[in-house]
Amino acid sequence: MYNNARFPIMKSEITRTPFPNSEKIYVEGVIHPIKVAMRKVKLTDTVKMVNGERVFHKNDDVVIYDTSGPFTDLSVQIDLQKGLPRLRESWIKERGDVEQLSDISSEYGRMRRADKSLDALRFEHIALPYRAKAGKQISQMYYAKQGVITPEMEYVAIRENQNNAELGIESHITPEFVRREVAEGRAVIPANINHPEAEPMIIGKNFLVKINTNIGNSATSSGIEEEVEKAVWSCRWGGDTLMDLSTGANIHETREWIIRNCPVPVGTVPIYQALEKVDGKVEDLTWEIYKDTLIEQCEQGVDYFTIHAGIRLHNVHLSQKRLTGIVSRGGSIMSKWCLVHNQESFLYDHFDDICEILAQYDVAISLGDGLRPGSIHDANDEAQFAELDTLGELVQRAWKYNVQAFIEGPGHVPMHKIKENMERQISACHEAPFYTLGPLTTDIAPGYDHITSAIGGAQIAWLGTAMLCYVTPKEHLGLPDKEDVRVGVITYKIAAHAADLAKGHPGAQVRDNALSKARYDFRWKDQFNLSLDPERALEYFKQGAHEDGEYCTMCGPNFCAMRLSHDLNACAK
Amino acid sequence: MYNNARFPIMKSEITRTPFPNSEKIYVEGVIHPIKVAMRKVKLTDTVKMVNGERVFHKNDDVVIYDTSGPFTDLSVQIDLQKGLPRLRESWIKERGDVEQLSDISSEYGRMRRADKSLDALRFEHIALPYRAKAGKQISQMYYAKQGVITPEMEYVAIRENQNNAELGIESHITPEFVRREVAEGRAVIPANINHPEAEPMIIGKNFLVKINTNIGNSATSSGIEEEVEKAVWSCRWGGDTLMDLSTGANIHETREWIIRNCPVPVGTVPIYQALEKVDGKVEDLTWEIYKDTLIEQCEQGVDYFTIHAGIRLHNVHLSQKRLTGIVSRGGSIMSKWCLVHNQESFLYDHFDDICEILAQYDVAISLGDGLRPGSIHDANDEAQFAELDTLGELVQRAWKYNVQAFIEGPGHVPMHKIKENMERQISACHEAPFYTLGPLTTDIAPGYDHITSAIGGAQIAWLGTAMLCYVTPKEHLGLPDKEDVRVGVITYKIAAHAADLAKGHPGAQVRDNALSKARYDFRWKDQFNLSLDPERALEYFKQGAHEDGEYCTMCGPNFCAMRLSHDLNACAK
Repeated sequence: MYNNARFPIMKSEITRTPFPNSEKIYVEGVIHPIKVAMRKVKLTDTVKMVNGERVFHKNDDVVIYDTSGPFTDLSVQIDLQKGLPRLRESWIKERGDVEQLSDISSEYGRMRRADKSLDALRFEHIALPYRAKAGKQISQMYYAKQGVITPEMEYVAIRENQNNAELGIESHITPEFVRREVAEGRAVIPANINHPEAEPMIIGKNFLVKINTNIGNSATSSGIEEEVEKAVWSCRWGGDTLMDLSTGANIHETREWIIRNCPVPVGTVPIYQALEKVDGKVEDLTWEIYKDTLIEQCEQGVDYFTIHAGIRLHNVHLSQKRLTGIVSRGGSIMSKWCLVHNQESFLYDHFDDICEILAQYDVAISLGDGLRPGSIHDANDEAQFAELDTLGELVQRAWKYNVQAFIEGPGHVPMHKIKENMERQISACHEAPFYTLGPLTTDIAPGYDHITSAIGGAQIAWLGTAMLCYVTPKEHLGLPDKEDVRVGVITYKIAAHAADLAKGHPGAQVRDNALSKARYDFRWKDQFNLSLDPERALEYFKQGAHEDGEYCTMCGPNFCAMRLSHDLNACAK
Repeated sequence: MYNNARFPIMKSEITRTPFPNSEKIYVEGVIHPIKVAMRKVKLTDTVKMVNGERVFHKNDDVVIYDTSGPFTDLSVQIDLQKGLPRLRESWIKERGDVEQLSDISSEYGRMRRADKSLDALRFEHIALPYRAKAGKQISQMYYAKQGVITPEMEYVAIRENQNNAELGIESHITPEFVRREVAEGRAVIPANINHPEAEPMIIGKNFLVKINTNIGNSATSSGIEEEVEKAVWSCRWGGDTLMDLSTGANIHETREWIIRNCPVPVGTVPIYQALEKVDGKVEDLTWEIYKDTLIEQCEQGVDYFTIHAGIRLHNVHLSQKRLTGIVSRGGSIMSKWCLVHNQESFLYDHFDDICEILAQYDVAISLGDGLRPGSIHDANDEAQFAELDTLGELVQRAWKYNVQAFIEGPGHVPMHKIKENMERQISACHEAPFYTLGPLTTDIAPGYDHITSAIGGAQIAWLGTAMLCYVTPKEHLGLPDKEDVRVGVITYKIAAHAADLAKGHPGAQVRDNALSKARYDFRWKDQFNLSLDPERALEYFKQGAHEDGEYCTMCGPNFCAMRLSHDLNACAK
């Protein structure tokens, strides 16, 4: 546990406990001098009785993809006030194509900085932002198209192959493969040059399925301190990216704290903050306010923006036919703006300007699905697919500027309509990565929508969706607390991993096999240590009044199938 | 809440609270004088402002399939000591083909009855059992083949169509359709003549997907009282059938209490009790002990037996190639027996004798998958499919005796191997209903295996599996408590319902639509009342410091998409 007593708003404990029997390891790059962080789970020996003597068989350690960042490496000193080590800063500077600005560019950012009343809330050690030098292209997509393998690309190539080298498992994922996927737009490495603390990761259908977690306060709840701990917490359990969806007070300051201490890429929906700037009056939103917000967030280090530029004036009426109208916040804001002004949205009209800004910082675009269906009834309707076609047009415009992009998807979709979503996305959006919310496969289980949506999420990820946005048990009911975040993340790790197995991702089954062997060997602790949530597994196990032997309370000694199955081996000999 | 103060072992409270704003209704039969129990959820009006005035639009009440039995009808007096009303007794007697015996037939049952030390545990009002008259066929399958629509068949036909008549939804499910499906073995109505308390239900791929819950004590935990409350509790949340998997002390007496108070069909695995009778020594099991156990349980009223007759001597060695051997308790017991005796199992050898016994009580067979895979590694292997072929042979033998039968399936299966399971089951087992445990789609999440398995369960049910056996969060770790049962049941109701939607079951979407409309109308209470777990939804909602208005803490007032979407309608006008 980390205790920061000096700074009043960061006095709470940040979770740093490493996972049981696990060790942080760093695998070195071959092309670049990089160190790729992973978690190694050390296993105990299998013990067998042979002729009355105990014989020990060694079990290979299992290396696990690790999103928890430096927090679980106790050899790293962490000071939340200073932020995480700036892992990628030297890589970025060495490319020689960026410059550090003498001041931040956003008017709003300067205004907040000048406001003394915010001093107590402020992250102290803000570095001046980087931006592309005039005339320079700096994005991962640009380099990929030039045939250059960046340190980020090598990092993710190593990261995607946890046990494969040692176990001799063949993998298609090489640094050159990563480069090609990024060049062709099939994969995205969200990597704002102003968020050098993040460990590179990749989103694309030919890679491990990723999960995004959402945190953020709303007008009615939650403070900075709580949000930072939630960010660290969600990375701990396996969140691959983190969206800060704050809509309440002090969005700017909250975000700074989160980004500086977040080891995974951070996404936002800039229209939320823009709306706060006009006191929630949708009709008062303008391109200028939005533009300043983009620049503000680009320079803070947001790695990707959800932009609802797919809302077109002539399509808005399509949602009127629905049972549940528009359920995307950004979608409803932009639809209302279009109708009030009877005008094409400024996001669509200024999409090229947006791309020009984002290209200077290598911020990726997540093309928002403002018309995603909010109920089983509305799934796969005309409104949804009309917007998808627009997103397909926009992704090509983004690629012209070498801006990395992916596409957001639904929402609420019954199982038999999931496949059409994936197929239409692939054809309409030129194989840009798909990033879906679930989908929820039924509407009748508020309180359990992490499950209704994991059922859909696993399926759509198997079909090719690259990243799943998690859903917590509180969906539709309220903001998630820490325990909800944990349950949401684990549930989505399950969906993503089930899809990795189904897709045949190289080495994905190593962990399943090791855990199952531990289970069959009655190596309980190894079983728990290899699981997605070792603490929960142990807690449930301990609730039973079991003895510490070769069975649990589920069946008791005489009815333990695995115990009998071992006897069987003896019988057969 | 029900409080039985008179009987010491039944002094705890049995949950009887009806669901909020719900009313028990009884729909009358047309062919037979039957009353089919359902739950009607009463909805409030939609309120809209038109020209400054509140205009009310009525919302149709929604009728829900109800497995909770008489417990949620407060007009029914319930005395756990006497058991539930014997709903089907008159139907059974009127067919004129059964006789009430003058004594129970099982030696063991008589022995237990004579044991005075058990008096304090015993259910008092045991009725003498019924059995087919000599030479008479009495099963639902027999009647179906004769072209007779029994009251049970009409009951399930009405039960499967909750809102369809009133809403004018066309349905293929008529009493005659039910009869044909039962006649052809594609569906099973588990209906032991000695469990007349159970409300008829049907298991078949052309009907609503059903879920089974498991309860039962093991040698290390849990008493009769707790198990009866768990049974009532699991029916309350939606369990369609209930397996009593007790393996500890007093199995006989526990089962009597459960059956007499259980409104859904009860299944068991008789080999568990048989093994208790030989003190856990597998090698001491004999056909005679097993046969007496079958008769004992047939006369108590068990509706279906899991029988692991698919274990063949020449196939047992196939499990030796596995990572996790045999994980079915019954499978491991019978495999060990075969190896120890180097002999074909008595279940396989005496399968015709078994059918002859079961036919006399209309007990159905659930053909156990003793060689189901216990890990992703072992899915779809030779052992599993060899056994499936044997089950296909056995189901036809059962049908010759007019014994209803279904087939159990795995287990642990990655998503891409699920479809093969269903296809091979259909072809090997002649369209007999499939009844699967999940399958679990990854091994890495002990503590969350209700979710790993709901992902697989939803998929295999969509493909045609008729019934899913629930998995609780405690799977692999310990026995479920009440809260685990609730979470397991709700999780499986989600999987089953998602499959009903995907299969296009007539009227399945009515509840989704009504709930989504309530959500969009901000009729929060209607939303909760229509949900699978109204209490949990309300509890989560209340945790947020929301105001009682048109938004929740998730987004706050300015960022509520649905609120904005309503504004949109106003703009568009």
